[in-house]
Amino acid sequence: MMLRFLVLLLVHLLKLISFSMVKGEYTLDSVRACLVKQEDTIIFGLIDRAKLPFNSPTYHPNHTSVPHYSASLLQFLVINTETIQAEAGRYNNPEENPFFPENLPPSIVPHYNFSQFLHPAAASVNINKFIWKLYFHELLPMFVALGDDGNYAQTAASDLSLLQAISRRIHYGKFVAEAKFRESPQDYEPLIRAQDREALMKLLTSKSVEDMVRKRIEKKAMVFGQEVSVDHDVKGKYKVDPLVVSHFYQKWVIPLTKIVEVEYFLHRLD
Amino acid sequence: MMLRFLVLLLVHLLKLISFSMVKGEYTLDSVRACLVKQEDTIIFGLIDRAKLPFNSPTYHPNHTSVPHYSASLLQFLVINTETIQAEAGRYNNPEENPFFPENLPPSIVPHYNFSQFLHPAAASVNINKFIWKLYFHELLPMFVALGDDGNYAQTAASDLSLLQAISRRIHYGKFVAEAKFRESPQDYEPLIRAQDREALMKLLTSKSVEDMVRKRIEKKAMVFGQEVSVDHDVKGKYKVDPLVVSHFYQKWVIPLTKIVEVEYFLHRLD
Repeated sequence: MMLRFLVLLLVHLLKLISFSMVKGEYTLDSVRACLVKQEDTIIFGLIDRAKLPFNSPTYHPNHTSVPHYSASLLQFLVINTETIQAEAGRYNNPEENPFFPENLPPSIVPHYNFSQFLHPAAASVNINKFIWKLYFHELLPMFVALGDDGNYAQTAASDLSLLQAISRRIHYGKFVAEAKFRESPQDYEPLIRAQDREALMKLLTSKSVEDMVRKRIEKKAMVFGQEVSVDHDVKGKYKVDPLVVSHFYQKWVIPLTKIVEVEYFLHRLD
Repeated sequence: MMLRFLVLLLVHLLKLISFSMVKGEYTLDSVRACLVKQEDTIIFGLIDRAKLPFNSPTYHPNHTSVPHYSASLLQFLVINTETIQAEAGRYNNPEENPFFPENLPPSIVPHYNFSQFLHPAAASVNINKFIWKLYFHELLPMFVALGDDGNYAQTAASDLSLLQAISRRIHYGKFVAEAKFRESPQDYEPLIRAQDREALMKLLTSKSVEDMVRKRIEKKAMVFGQEVSVDHDVKGKYKVDPLVVSHFYQKWVIPLTKIVEVEYFLHRLD
């Protein structure tokens, strides 16, 4: 009887351990570690996009030969790729946010039990429309060379990967906010009840963390963007200007992540 | 009259210059420089895929909830994404080779005048079916950790990007072969006429170039795969084992590129 009880207890404990390992429960530390990994993906994406010239026909409306189709080639590719990825289950994970959420089909994969770490209101926070505009008007002209080599499909695919990486990083603010809330609800609750955006922004801001992120991203852009040669080091030549990358983080990625955090907080007690 | 002639000549010359710049004519040097750039994309792709666990349901047949659909989620995603990219014009560029060329739709973008550097027989050289098998049986198990986090769509998208980068690198052998042929047709022509695979393989092989590629790829995997920290260097810890990357190049990427070269040569005088 005692043995049977011990075995059952052991099985239960093992299940719990494997469950929590698989589910990868979020903590402020694990959330920050994930943000650090996502920096690599963004820099790799910038370097890959910079290999191609601007290729402006990718962005012209009416460039396709489909009658009455007024979207750009990029929109065509993004809308259709998101459709396929939605069917493959990408947006079942609350870490992912589509650029064109309208009319996405349901997933065709069996249900997977993703961690329900966020408050359900998180689903309504999606600033991709803003990120989309920002990408074309602020980011692309800063790091891509003028020119046209005809590789518009590859350009659009590269844009999509980079847009997804940037969007993922910025919307990860929801997880940052929830982790902060769970660490000190007593600090956040009164500000949320008062719907005080300004005070929330002030409370969640850590100048020292932001400075560190900016410094690290610049260093990463230097390390990952250098020319690597077997017999000599090529100094001072980078595939994407490290200052452009850290400026983009300072001016856009960090502030937008904080806006996502505030938006999330405002609905945290709904 | 003289002025008019000079202006016309100037306009013609400018057109020629801009044309050759846009078209980026291939030489053995430019082809090799492009192979070097492609190494970065492959290593970035390996590092990005290594962030996700193996996620085996991505590769099971019948994992989708679509009745009578027996393909894996990866096949579903690759076939459908290639369809969209074909419509967006990806395969108009002879540098690109689809994994599922059967039934791809025509491109919906206006014709772009890609360089006709290759012999038309190049279109028939496509070893993606082999690369596909190699990827699952040889490469994935070498660098991806066991585990399942439910992100199957992201896994498949990451696999596709990496597969495309590897396929592009290997099929670039066609351009390497053509550049070599143009440099010394007198050496290649008799072997092609004799359809002598073995002698062709020997002639196109440069041990010293291969050694350099292997060394460079290992160094790149170390540089791009290191943990970057602002205040201290993290030594000896890599996101993907550099030896795995150089082994993959030595055992598969380089030999398969040479097989593509030989296949191309065999049809070069058709």
